[in-house]
Amino acid sequence: MNYEAFFEAELATLKDDGNYRIFAELERQAGAFPAAEQFVDDLRRPVTVWCSNDYLGMGQHPKVLAAMHETLDRCGAGAGGTRNISGTTHSHVLLEAELADLHGKEAALLFTSGYVSNWAALGTLGARLPGCVILSDALNHASMIEGIRHSRAEVQKFVHNSPDDLDRRLAALDPSRPKLVAFESVYSMDGDIAPIAEILDVCDAHGAMSYLDEVHGVGLYGARGGGIAEREGLMDRVTVIEGTLGKAFGVMGGYIAASAALCDFVRSFASGFIFTTALPPALAAGAAASIRHLKSSEIERTKHRDRVARVRRRLDAIGIPTLDNPSHIIPVMVGDAHKCKRISDWLLEHHGIYVQPINYPTVPVGTERLRLTPSPVHTDSDIDILVSALSEIWSQCELARRALAA
Amino acid sequence: MNYEAFFEAELATLKDDGNYRIFAELERQAGAFPAAEQFVDDLRRPVTVWCSNDYLGMGQHPKVLAAMHETLDRCGAGAGGTRNISGTTHSHVLLEAELADLHGKEAALLFTSGYVSNWAALGTLGARLPGCVILSDALNHASMIEGIRHSRAEVQKFVHNSPDDLDRRLAALDPSRPKLVAFESVYSMDGDIAPIAEILDVCDAHGAMSYLDEVHGVGLYGARGGGIAEREGLMDRVTVIEGTLGKAFGVMGGYIAASAALCDFVRSFASGFIFTTALPPALAAGAAASIRHLKSSEIERTKHRDRVARVRRRLDAIGIPTLDNPSHIIPVMVGDAHKCKRISDWLLEHHGIYVQPINYPTVPVGTERLRLTPSPVHTDSDIDILVSALSEIWSQCELARRALAA
Ligand SMILES: Cc1ncc(COP(=O)(O)O)c(C=O)c1O
Ligand SMILES: Cc1ncc(COP(=O)(O)O)c(C=O)c1O
Repeated sequence: MNYEAFFEAELATLKDDGNYRIFAELERQAGAFPAAEQFVDDLRRPVTVWCSNDYLGMGQHPKVLAAMHETLDRCGAGAGGTRNISGTTHSHVLLEAELADLHGKEAALLFTSGYVSNWAALGTLGARLPGCVILSDALNHASMIEGIRHSRAEVQKFVHNSPDDLDRRLAALDPSRPKLVAFESVYSMDGDIAPIAEILDVCDAHGAMSYLDEVHGVGLYGARGGGIAEREGLMDRVTVIEGTLGKAFGVMGGYIAASAALCDFVRSFASGFIFTTALPPALAAGAAASIRHLKSSEIERTKHRDRVARVRRRLDAIGIPTLDNPSHIIPVMVGDAHKCKRISDWLLEHHGIYVQPINYPTVPVGTERLRLTPSPVHTDSDIDILVSALSEIWSQCELARRALAA
Repeated sequence: MNYEAFFEAELATLKDDGNYRIFAELERQAGAFPAAEQFVDDLRRPVTVWCSNDYLGMGQHPKVLAAMHETLDRCGAGAGGTRNISGTTHSHVLLEAELADLHGKEAALLFTSGYVSNWAALGTLGARLPGCVILSDALNHASMIEGIRHSRAEVQKFVHNSPDDLDRRLAALDPSRPKLVAFESVYSMDGDIAPIAEILDVCDAHGAMSYLDEVHGVGLYGARGGGIAEREGLMDRVTVIEGTLGKAFGVMGGYIAASAALCDFVRSFASGFIFTTALPPALAAGAAASIRHLKSSEIERTKHRDRVARVRRRLDAIGIPTLDNPSHIIPVMVGDAHKCKRISDWLLEHHGIYVQPINYPTVPVGTERLRLTPSPVHTDSDIDILVSALSEIWSQCELARRALAA
C-alpha cells in the first residue's frame, strides 16, 4: 500500500468537492477586538472578525487577563501533571466551585475542552450504566456523537427538537433500563433553541436522565449567565449540564455540572478525564474570573442582544437570506460550497471582513453558509461596512434575495 | 432505576478496594519549583513535589512565562474559535513549524492535548485507511487504546516491546492491507524504553506505517530534545511521531509530526481536531519558547540525568525496591493499594514530600507504586530528605528491602 498516494488522493477529492479547508492565519488584537491581523505571504493586513465564538469579547476583558497574568507569575505555565498526579491546583478547585454555583448544582468537573467533556462524560455514563439506552437529538454535536459511540450503549436518534418523538421512543423501552437523553440548548449552526421544558417533562415521565449541552448558551443567557436552562428556570431539573470555557467565557476548557455522586463517578472512571494533563492553572483562573464577572454584569448580554438585533434588521431590510432563529447566531445562507468560499474570500480581500465559509461536514451539503456572530465589541460602523459589503457581493453574484417585507 | 444510588454504590466499591482517588490540592510556586503549597482544610502547608511530569521545570522558565505574558497582552486569552473558524493564529502556525523542525518532518499538527492527539490521529488513520490493521503494543497508553478502539479497525496487541511477536503477526497478514504499528518510546509507569530500531526494521519488512508516542521522551532525550528516536538517529524512519506540550515542555497541548500529506489528511478528517476550540495563542507561544530553548540548551537534560542517577544510587544503597530501567522515571514498588496510599499520606504529613500513590487502573493490581520524577530543580538536600524519609517509613512498615549489593 502506498500510504502517501492514498492521503493525497483523498485530499484531492476534498478539493474537487470544494470541501478542502484553508485556515485563515490571524492574530486578534487584545483591547481592539473584533480587530485582528491576517497573515498572508509574510504580509499582515487588518481585518474585522465576524465569526468568532468569543461571543462577548471576554477574551480581552481586563479582569480575565489580569487573573491569567497573576496566576502565571505565581504558579507557572502548566499544571505539570494529570489531575490525580500533581495536577490539581487551587485554581482548579475554585473554578469547579464557581461552575457548580453557576448552575446551582452540587458539583462540577473540569475537562481540557468542551469536546472532551462531552466525549468523556457521555462515554462513561453510557458504558457504565448497565444496559443504558441513550436518546440523542438528531443534530447533536460531533463531540456528543463520538462520546455516545464510544460508550457502545444502545443509541436511538430522536427527531431534532421533538419531545413527541422522544416520548414515543422512551415509552417503547423497558421501564427498568437506565436511559439518558442527550441534547443541546442552542444548536450552533442553525441557532435554533431546544424546547427544554417539554423535553424534561418527557424525561421525567419515563425516568430518564437528561444531559444538556449548553456550550452555546453559557455566559450568554440567564440572569447570571447560566445558559438557556437558567433563563427558563429549569437548571435544577436537568441531570447534567455541560459547557465550555472557550466560547462566551473567552478562554479554554470544558465541564459538567451535576450531583456530587455523578461528578465523582465520572471523575473516577472517565479515561478522557484521568489520563491527561490538567488545564494550566492560569487558564482555570482566567475562566473563573470571566464566569464571576458575567454572573453579576448584565451589560455584555444586553449589548450582545442589541448588536444581534441590529445586524438582523439591516440584513432583513435588504433581503439577504438568513435562517430565522431566536438566538445570537445569524446564518447567512448560500447553499453551495464553492460559492460560499468565493464570497468569503471576496469579503476578506475587498473589505477586510473575515467570516469563514461553513461547509460540509460541519453542515449538510446544500446548506453551506456564512455564520455571523455579532458581539458587543462590534460597532455601528463595523455593521454598516458588513451590510454594504454583503449587499454588493449579493448583487455581483446575482444571488437570490428574500422577498422584502413591505 | 435509581441513578444516584448506582453511582454511590460504584464509588463505595472503589473505596473498599483502595482505588478511590483523592486529589492533592496544590499550588506550585513559580520560581521555586519543586516547592508548592498544599491546601488542607483552608490551611496551606509547604510541600516538595516529587511526582510532577513537568520533568525539567520548564513550567517556571522565564522565557516560557515571558512569551505567555507577551502573547496574552497582545492577542488576549482564548483563540475564540476552532482552527477552521477564526481560531488559527500566527502563534499556532509558528508552533507547528517549530514542531516539524524538532522532528525533522515536513509538517506537524497541533491538538488540545496529547490525549486528544493520540485519540484523534489513531482514530482517523485506523478508520479511513481501507481495511487497516493496527498492531498495538500491549502496554500502550489509554489515549492510544481509545483512539484505536474508536477507529473500529481490526486490532492486534503485540507482546510488549517484542519485535519478534510483531514480526510474526505482520507476516501472517495480507501483504496488501494497510498496517499501522503503534507504540511508545518511554513507557511512563515502568520507565522502560522500546527497541525502536528493531520495531522499525520489522515495520519496513512488512510495509507497515509506524506511530511512535514520544510523550515521555520529547524535550528530554536527543541533542535537540526530539526524543528517544532523535537520540538513536531514527526520526526519519518513523512515519508519525506524537508528543505532548504538557510534560517536559511545561505547558499544555499535543501534536503529531509527519509528512505534509498525512498531517493534512488528519487535519481534514479528524473530528477531535476539527470540532473543538483551538489552544489559546499564549499556550502556543509558551510551548514554542520552551521547545526553542530546549533545542539549543543541554543544561537541563544534563542536570536531569544527574539528579535521576543520584536518587537511584541513594535508594539502591539502602535497598528501597525500585524497578530498574534506562529512563528518568523511578518507580518505587509497593505492591498494595492501601499500603501505597498510607505511605504517600505519611510522607506528606510528616515530611512535606508529595508523591502520589499510583494504583489501579493506571497500573495493574499488585504493582502499586510511588513514581518518583527527579528533576533539575531538585537539590541535593531535597534528595537527602526524600531518601531518609523513605528509609524511615520502609522500616516502620516492615516493608521488604532489596538484598543490598556489596
Ligand atoms: C455544541 C457543542 N458542544 C461542544 C463543543 C466543543 O467545545 P470546545 O470547543 O470547548 O471543545 C462545541 C464546539 O466547539 C459545540 O458546538
Ligand atoms: C504515553 C502517553 N501518551 C499520551 C498522554 C497524554 O498526554 P497529555 O497529558 O498531553 O494529554 C500521556 C499522559 O498524560 C501518556 O503518558
